[in-house]
This record gives sequence, structure tokens and C-alpha cells, in this order.
Amino acid sequence: MMPFYVMDLVATFVFALSGAMQGVKSRLDLFGVLVVSYAAAVAGGIIRDLMIGAVPPAAISDWRYLTVAGAAGLVGFFASDVIGKLKTPVLLFDAAGLCLFAVTGTQKALAFGLDPVMAAILGMITCIGGGVMRDLLTGQIPSVLRSELYAVAALAGAGSIALGARLDAPVLPTAAFGAGLCLFLRLMSIYCGWRLPMARSRKFRDETEK
Amino acid sequence: MMPFYVMDLVATFVFALSGAMQGVKSRLDLFGVLVVSYAAAVAGGIIRDLMIGAVPPAAISDWRYLTVAGAAGLVGFFASDVIGKLKTPVLLFDAAGLCLFAVTGTQKALAFGLDPVMAAILGMITCIGGGVMRDLLTGQIPSVLRSELYAVAALAGAGSIALGARLDAPVLPTAAFGAGLCLFLRLMSIYCGWRLPMARSRKFRDETEK
Amino acid sequence: MMPFYVMDLVATFVFALSGAMQGVKSRLDLFGVLVVSYAAAVAGGIIRDLMIGAVPPAAISDWRYLTVAGAAGLVGFFASDVIGKLKTPVLLFDAAGLCLFAVTGTQKALAFGLDPVMAAILGMITCIGGGVMRDLLTGQIPSVLRSELYAVAALAGAGSIALGARLDAPVLPTAAFGAGLCLFLRLMSIYCGWRLPMARSRKFRDETEK
Repeated sequence: MMPFYVMDLVATFVFALSGAMQGVKSRLDLFGVLVVSYAAAVAGGIIRDLMIGAVPPAAISDWRYLTVAGAAGLVGFFASDVIGKLKTPVLLFDAAGLCLFAVTGTQKALAFGLDPVMAAILGMITCIGGGVMRDLLTGQIPSVLRSELYAVAALAGAGSIALGARLDAPVLPTAAFGAGLCLFLRLMSIYCGWRLPMARSRKFRDETEK
Repeated sequence: MMPFYVMDLVATFVFALSGAMQGVKSRLDLFGVLVVSYAAAVAGGIIRDLMIGAVPPAAISDWRYLTVAGAAGLVGFFASDVIGKLKTPVLLFDAAGLCLFAVTGTQKALAFGLDPVMAAILGMITCIGGGVMRDLLTGQIPSVLRSELYAVAALAGAGSIALGARLDAPVLPTAAFGAGLCLFLRLMSIYCGWRLPMARSRKFRDETEK
Repeated sequence: MMPFYVMDLVATFVFALSGAMQGVKSRLDLFGVLVVSYAAAVAGGIIRDLMIGAVPPAAISDWRYLTVAGAAGLVGFFASDVIGKLKTPVLLFDAAGLCLFAVTGTQKALAFGLDPVMAAILGMITCIGGGVMRDLLTGQIPSVLRSELYAVAALAGAGSIALGARLDAPVLPTAAFGAGLCLFLRLMSIYCGWRLPMARSRKFRDETEK
């Protein structure tokens, strides 16, 4: 469906930009930055496509994803100083990308016949896969696993969409609601510090081996 | 086959618990702990299923894996202090999970027509994939690659089962033997310190770049 | 095609050797070294095969890859001191492996009907996937993303082959040209220090969170 396709490409651009910023921080060379951009943008979608049997994955068979990710990578490489100052805008763009991927990832999993619960899980994996890959490639513990309501926002959005599909709700309003819920949770986390608890076990953590 | 399915779910629980403990140690938030639990429990099986073309992988298409892994993740999150004291029980449960996955992983690869040698390799990958993913997500060199007879025990168990299938031995006794061999090697390693040698090259290790 | 198959096995040996050296450096035990050898040798090809739907991947269904990678792993484990002194030979072998994988990876992607641009990308992924996996498993930022013309050389070689296929050029001369271009760029990087720029943004890098 056309609007979902455009949303997918916009999210690809935004996520590739976050990959480029991370690559520059990790002092990769130009090509390394482009590779991390591409990985951050498409890893989640590729994992989803492999799992539902949609091979070759869209990110491989459709050159537009590569082009969009490459363009974002170049922007990130050459304008990292400028973008670095725009910390809030980048966070907002990233939040937008998150919502869009939650919608498109879940929709695609549903279209391939997964049941709603697992479609929501795959929608979330679409959202966080790229960020996880970006952080692994640059030697960091994935920030989406520890930082403010990120994977949870993705799952809430994806779950709404899957639930809507289960209830035969109309597609576009459902997508809008899911994306809105995801965006709301993410913005609450950024601006109001909403977050999930960590485990209380001080004792256990102190006796870690290293 | 029913017994193998139950074994698979039990192993999923145990591995998810090990993922949760690691996630708590790495100070992830609640959702991060759940994600690492799920990854630790199902990554090996997903890799196996992707490689033999069984898509969507069982861990995605069957909600029971998600439920079991999520329950283990919650237990690990809220009871990490208690479980942390039970160091030996956790190691024993983990050893049990290892044996079970060696059996079920190899059986599934054989059922999809792989030859015995490669089925044994996939059985081992089923066993160690989750642990590798758990350690990568929490920023550590995978312990299964360096610690006491872990992957080797998995391969010995998986290899026995593949060999039994090659020789047309009856399925359940073969499975019992393979699981028993795997368990024996792992317990010998835990209690008697059995391990594999490391390379002797002190010189080469000292000239590492960083 | 026979010559490509032999090239693939030779490249497998060389890459497995690089994995073994890295595993020894990271103080893995014998089996860990073998696992990293195998991963370094076949991860790129497995990713490519999963993406084009060639399951089970050649590295799983054909026991020769396992045998060759295992032999290289043993050589690396027991002769790491000797090989460590041969720094330049290892770099040259690795460069040879890079060219060979660029050829075989791109050829296989083309044979599965991918368009030339994405076949070149998959050819490059075949080349760098193993090195990325090797470095992730041993806790390092992948060197292929930051070091001298590595992924770029792979992409140049893979791109030449894809372009030749698009223009219906004869297969063997095209392969020779692509491999030669890849080798030339890699050697220029090793001997003459050719490399790509890093981003100029001193300011942004200084304000990194940690």
C-alpha cells in the first residue's frame, strides 16, 4: 500500500541517520559509516523478512532502501557537527521512525499470515533490530534495551495494530492509533522521563564476576 | 513428537532464565531483561530454523515459546537475588537445557533431511546460539566459546544422536544416550574442572594490537 | 562452476585462519577457536544464502566447508606462533580470500536473479560478513568497518562483476578483472596506506556520552 511504503522509506532515512551519527562517533571511515547506516536502517526489516519467509528481503531486492540509507549516511558523515547540535530534532526524527516501522513491520507480518501476538513481536523486532545492530557494530550494549521506553513504545504501537487487525478495525485509523500511541510513549519518555524499573537486586549485581 | 516438544519448552525456560540473570547484571530495564531472556531462549532455534528453511521459525509461530520465555524473564527479574544465591542449581538447570536442546535441535535438523554431520553441527548451534546472543547483547565475549566444555558437550550429544539416526538406532534410547553424554561432560566440567586446552602461544598474544 | 567452487574453498580456508588467529588472541579454548574459525569463514556466505533463499546454505549442506574451516582452525590453533610472525603473508592470503569471495558471492547472487546493484551489495556482504562475525564474537568493533580499504575493495570487485554481467561480458574475464581490482585496492591499502577519510567533526566526537 502506497502510504506504508513511503512511511517505510522515511523511517529508513531516519534510522540510517542515527547509524551514521553513531559510526562517526566510533571513528569509522566513510565506508564504515555507510555500512552502519545501512545496517541500522534495514537490519530490523531484514530479520522480519527472513522470519516470515519473504526472501529476498525488501531491503535487498528494492534498491530504494539502499539509496535512501546511503543518502542518509552521507548526510550524517558530512554534516555530523550540524546534526550533533540538533540533539532534540534527531531524537524526534528517531521517534517518528520508530512509529513508522512499528506500523509497517506489523502490517507486513500480518500480511504474511502470522497471528496477531507474533505479528506484534515481529513489528517490535522491525523497530529495534536496526538499533541493536548499530550498537553491536560499534561495540556498545544496545541502548534500546536499557534506555527510556523505546522497545516498549514500539511494542505498544505494534500491539495496537495487531489487535486492530484481529478485531477487523479499518486499517488506516488503526495504523494512526498505533503510531500515535508509540509516539506518545516515546515523547513522554524523552520529555517527562518516563521509564521502566530496573531490578532491585543490588546484592546480585555486586557479585558479578568482572 | 510430544516428549521432544515438552523438552524444548523446558530448555526454553531454563535458557531464558540465564538470559534474565545476565540482563539484570547488565542493569537493563525490565523490558530489556525480557528481550534478552527471549533472545537467549530462542536465538539458537531461530538460527537453526532459518538455515533449514523452516519459516516462520517455531519460536515465532508458536506463542508458547514466547510465553515460557517471558515467564522465565519475569522470574529472573523479580527474583534475581534469590536465584543469584542458587548458583549451582542454575548451572544444573542450564546443563539440563543444554542436553534437551542438543536432542531437539539435532532431531529437527535430521527431520528436514540434513545429513548427520551437518545435523550435529546445527544441533550444537541450537544449543549455543542463545548463549552467544545473550552475551553479545550484554557486551561480553560469548562465554560458551571460552568456558568449560560447553559447546563440546553440546556437540558430543548432538553427534551421538545424529550417529544413532544414521545407524537406524531407535529414537528414544538414542536421544537418552545423547542427552546423557552431553550432561555427563558438562557435569564433569562443572564439578571436576574438565576443560579444553588454550593455545600455547604466549608470544603471539602479547603482541596484540590493543 | 568448478573454478568458482575451488576459489570458494580456498577463501574459506584463509578466512578461517584469520578467525583462528583472532580466537587465539582472545584466549578462547580449542573449541572456541574452531567455532570462531568456522564463523569467520562461512558467516558472510550464510547471510547471503539466507537472503537469496538458498536454504540450507552451502556452508551447512556441504561438509567440505566445515572440513576446510576446521582444518584451518587447527592449523591456526597449533601454529599460531609461527603464523603470527608471518604477518604480511597472512594479510596477503586474507586479501586473496577477499577477492575470491567477492567473485563467488556476486556470481551466486546473480545466479539467483538479483539485479546487479543488489548482487554487488550481497557480494560485499559475503566478503565482510565473516570478518564482522569474527570480531563481534571476540568483543571488538569490526575492523573491516574502520581499517584500510577493505569493504570498499570488496564492493569494487563485486560491482565490477555485477556490471560485467549486466553488459553480458564473458564470465571468466569479468571475474578476473573484478578479483584483480579488489586485490589491487587492497594491496595499495596495505603497502601504500591508501584509505578513506574519517569525518572531520572533532567537536561532535568530544561530546560523546562515554
